[in-house]
Amino acid sequence: MAKEKRSIDDLTMWDDAKQMIRKAEKDGVETVWDRLEQQTPHCPFCEQGLTCQKCVMGPCRISEKKPRGVCGADADLTVARNFGRFVAAGAASHSDHGRDLVETLLAIGQGKTTDYTVRDEEKLRRIAGEIGLDVAGKDTKTLAKEVAESMTQDFGFATKSLGFMSRVPAKRRELWKKLGITPRGIDRDIVEMMHRTHMGVDSDPVSLCLHSARLCLGDGWGGSMIGTELSDVIFGTPTPTTGKVNLGVIQEDQVNILVHGHSPIVSEMVLAAVNDPDLLAAAKAAGATGINLAGLCCTGNELLMRQGVPMAGNHLMTELAIITGAVEMILVDYQCIMPSLVQVSSCYHTKFISTSDKAKFAGAEHVEFNHTNAKEQARKVVRMAIEGFKLRDKSRVDIPGEPVELMTGFSNEAILGALGGTPDPLIDAIKAGAVRGAVGIVGCNNPKQKHDYVHVNLAKELIKRDILVLVTGCATVAMGKAGLMMPGAASQAGDGLKAVCESLGIPPVLHVGSCVDNSRILHLCGVLANALGVDIADLPVAASAPEWYSEKAAAIGLYAVASGIYTHLGLPPNITGSEMVTGLALGGLNDVVGACFAVEPDPFKAADLIDARIKAKRKGLGLSE
Amino acid sequence: MAKEKRSIDDLTMWDDAKQMIRKAEKDGVETVWDRLEQQTPHCPFCEQGLTCQKCVMGPCRISEKKPRGVCGADADLTVARNFGRFVAAGAASHSDHGRDLVETLLAIGQGKTTDYTVRDEEKLRRIAGEIGLDVAGKDTKTLAKEVAESMTQDFGFATKSLGFMSRVPAKRRELWKKLGITPRGIDRDIVEMMHRTHMGVDSDPVSLCLHSARLCLGDGWGGSMIGTELSDVIFGTPTPTTGKVNLGVIQEDQVNILVHGHSPIVSEMVLAAVNDPDLLAAAKAAGATGINLAGLCCTGNELLMRQGVPMAGNHLMTELAIITGAVEMILVDYQCIMPSLVQVSSCYHTKFISTSDKAKFAGAEHVEFNHTNAKEQARKVVRMAIEGFKLRDKSRVDIPGEPVELMTGFSNEAILGALGGTPDPLIDAIKAGAVRGAVGIVGCNNPKQKHDYVHVNLAKELIKRDILVLVTGCATVAMGKAGLMMPGAASQAGDGLKAVCESLGIPPVLHVGSCVDNSRILHLCGVLANALGVDIADLPVAASAPEWYSEKAAAIGLYAVASGIYTHLGLPPNITGSEMVTGLALGGLNDVVGACFAVEPDPFKAADLIDARIKAKRKGLGLSE
Repeated sequence: MAKEKRSIDDLTMWDDAKQMIRKAEKDGVETVWDRLEQQTPHCPFCEQGLTCQKCVMGPCRISEKKPRGVCGADADLTVARNFGRFVAAGAASHSDHGRDLVETLLAIGQGKTTDYTVRDEEKLRRIAGEIGLDVAGKDTKTLAKEVAESMTQDFGFATKSLGFMSRVPAKRRELWKKLGITPRGIDRDIVEMMHRTHMGVDSDPVSLCLHSARLCLGDGWGGSMIGTELSDVIFGTPTPTTGKVNLGVIQEDQVNILVHGHSPIVSEMVLAAVNDPDLLAAAKAAGATGINLAGLCCTGNELLMRQGVPMAGNHLMTELAIITGAVEMILVDYQCIMPSLVQVSSCYHTKFISTSDKAKFAGAEHVEFNHTNAKEQARKVVRMAIEGFKLRDKSRVDIPGEPVELMTGFSNEAILGALGGTPDPLIDAIKAGAVRGAVGIVGCNNPKQKHDYVHVNLAKELIKRDILVLVTGCATVAMGKAGLMMPGAASQAGDGLKAVCESLGIPPVLHVGSCVDNSRILHLCGVLANALGVDIADLPVAASAPEWYSEKAAAIGLYAVASGIYTHLGLPPNITGSEMVTGLALGGLNDVVGACFAVEPDPFKAADLIDARIKAKRKGLGLSE
Repeated sequence: MAKEKRSIDDLTMWDDAKQMIRKAEKDGVETVWDRLEQQTPHCPFCEQGLTCQKCVMGPCRISEKKPRGVCGADADLTVARNFGRFVAAGAASHSDHGRDLVETLLAIGQGKTTDYTVRDEEKLRRIAGEIGLDVAGKDTKTLAKEVAESMTQDFGFATKSLGFMSRVPAKRRELWKKLGITPRGIDRDIVEMMHRTHMGVDSDPVSLCLHSARLCLGDGWGGSMIGTELSDVIFGTPTPTTGKVNLGVIQEDQVNILVHGHSPIVSEMVLAAVNDPDLLAAAKAAGATGINLAGLCCTGNELLMRQGVPMAGNHLMTELAIITGAVEMILVDYQCIMPSLVQVSSCYHTKFISTSDKAKFAGAEHVEFNHTNAKEQARKVVRMAIEGFKLRDKSRVDIPGEPVELMTGFSNEAILGALGGTPDPLIDAIKAGAVRGAVGIVGCNNPKQKHDYVHVNLAKELIKRDILVLVTGCATVAMGKAGLMMPGAASQAGDGLKAVCESLGIPPVLHVGSCVDNSRILHLCGVLANALGVDIADLPVAASAPEWYSEKAAAIGLYAVASGIYTHLGLPPNITGSEMVTGLALGGLNDVVGACFAVEPDPFKAADLIDARIKAKRKGLGLSE
């Protein structure tokens, strides 16, 4: 069972990361890789999904010798219940994030905030129409209120269907109806999963897996899509721009503030504050040349997409960014914020500030943001960071590497805009085989894999094969650091994709946003399927989460599959203890929803699998392979 | 670690159960006790709440050697996250059950069903007023629709507070507000817990525990209370009546149908069908003398409270009931239905029928009930049971024991009605010390404990001390079988309680319903506190779940404590791996919400603990101890 200790070269493909892992050792700071080593080997029962702690008749472990838990649940049921809760938590996270945007828009509509406004009124009007509201003659505030109220109902269990169901191709909607997996209410379907997985409720693994799919559809076409679309309405719809990425974006001579988490609601206010002349003056008075805001994780993606704010790193870089010794403050909202960051911060002069009432951190300072105090709180935390600059120990500062440039801002509006307002040029390129298909590479990092290695090599392999790559979340930083997000990377693409990229001046890997923004990819698939008069499952597209770790990523994977998109995972969820559930995931779902999962840690083999799917789908549409 | 095999006398206190456990051995049927033996010893990490499977960087196990998971979560955080999900599932179950009643009432109001009607119009009007609706001049259907629509909003995240907050004493509401634990929306608070427990969201164990309390309050004063009150509106508010209990209620010469689960929606329709003359004739033609409907678990409680339908048994009796060999059909809705019942049924001629789209059972037959087909489906399943009677193997039938009589039907309306319409006589009796206090004994069975032994002995010990016992759920069957639910049992009470019971003609242990009906106890506490002008925490009352096993029971316990009610548990939840969380539960919460938990497996010691609390509270009110 004992494993040989992995060398630093096995942990990550990046020099900036390696340099900081070495510094962590020197500084005596524990990192995620140290803890993974401690926790390896993992419990084989938990790893296979075969433990149950859902009542105190147990806990139980299912094995050949003990084939049933105290209640009588077997391996299939135990795994299906665990997986149901796993994706329920993922969907809950995205959707509760979307809810915060609904509440912000409602506050705008009700005139309860001046800190937030509608920056993209045209999009507000367009969305209002899509979800079935009467737009004519209404002012922005009224419309903001009505859109927010309508979306509030999407979370409940009123009888109407989710607003954005209008974006789902008719064939797909029919299939969901036939299967009984049309999402009803975003919260309702999540809560029902918690009910179904209680002892003695849903005790049929197939029924549980179908409801898992349903609640994930409520995430993709509901909670996440609301999160994306309202973020655009409130903070502006992204348009192509450039940014920079890697630890080199941290500035030795400036006050460095890192924002981490997933929502733009807090970070956009901090961005405004760091440009405040009074605060800049205060920073200078403290001996800094300025205030540098940089992003981590998906809050970073939100700021990068809309504002070109530099990105310090992805999931596995969050501890390492602090280890530079040059970070005055890490300011977090919620999701994927390793609790260890509080300890890492305490090893330096770094202030760790939590901002959300639903995400406090033991040992951290809490500065709560809400709709009426956000601008003021943002200025407060920036002042705190400036104070922190005075405490920086210059002898412990080490900022590795030079930032790499990338292009960003490829919202669907921007993509369709670049194509002249219709998807036809893209469809023509697909039909001609210049672009053979498109793949969304999404998701996290996982210390079990060599950091960013699967992301980068999969993307390189796909663009070589004339497959366009759309990227979100932590995968973005990987592609950016690898230089794949600049137009020049077209030279690494196959001839067809290269020509298309060069004619449009775009890179072969397009940044479409944060992890809730995978809903942009769903929407684009809907647009393409409708334009072709086919189902999403007929398109030459796929998804991949090569280095995923989170419950949210599992929910994304399942809404992709249930929407008809073949989805590659770099490592499996904890389901391998059930042949039935594993078989359904890796094949059986194909006959049910027209797509399934593939698990493959090797990026080159994964590219072959995805390519085979795209060939089959091209053939199905009567196109060249 | 290895335990000696427990003798049958250690498993249960009842002869009917012992006889069937022996028959199970003879018939080669596996029971819950066999599986518990297989699963013992339990994993110590899981048992202490120290495992985490919430992402695939893990799974992790926290120990002294490995004090943090891969993300950095320590023991306190790991336990708090696990417990948060545990109670979230419990609250989700009750609330999703309540939702079904809301949908039924809405269907009535919209004229979409004739199978269901409003049987207690007066209660509908009263509730409508309590939740703030204008009642005057509205007909029943309109009011049904408006009440259902208002309650639908209680599940969502509109800004108004839950309808039944009007029942909470002002001091308690103020406290919740101060603590930030006023429930907002029933589903919202559950979903937010799933979000908070995702990796990198709420990473402060105290914050998680407070949110656990909040979502449980949304269960007690929301989902469960809605479930109770609308069940009364639709199926009638219980009034005192008598019933019978134990396996002896199964009839050797009749077609036996057992209903199991938690909701009256299906079982009330089956009750109507078994009285259908055509079906009775069919039963006779099949050689039976009639059709016998009996209840198990909380569906049984619902039918017992309102209709006096006999109760075959509680949680640990569900397998044993089938082992009599005389059950033609077990018909289930949802919750606490051991998946093993499908296997046990297949060892006999028993048909196992599932009825709810959210609770299917692998290997069972599914006959789905909805608002428009319920009466028809009920007749269908009764016909199936009659067919099954012909297949019964008489040589394998063994029905133990004689039924015991009990009184039931003590809704708050019935209790207050018996007191002349006001709580004053009860308050006077409390002030005088004739009734020193009241304790709700609630919850399940757990095979780790000697079946019903803790229930019965705790109740006996409390009534001896002039403490009135209210009983719900599986505890009911225990008290009923022990003869404590007949007026004659007053002779076992202390002099004060005895006199009160005798003057009113009631038993010292009052049946107030199923497990959602613990909301009746909350409501009654609210009424008493308001009448006295105090907080619930000031009342000489307590709760006890002596033999609990389920996530729902944990949610009930926490809403009781957060409402100010001291709560005894016969065994601990999986939290003992965190000193902080355990300390909060067993004491710290006292300073926060004015009540906490006590864990004590011994019923006599538990009675002492409860008695001490009641003494202290009586003293606080200036009363004799």
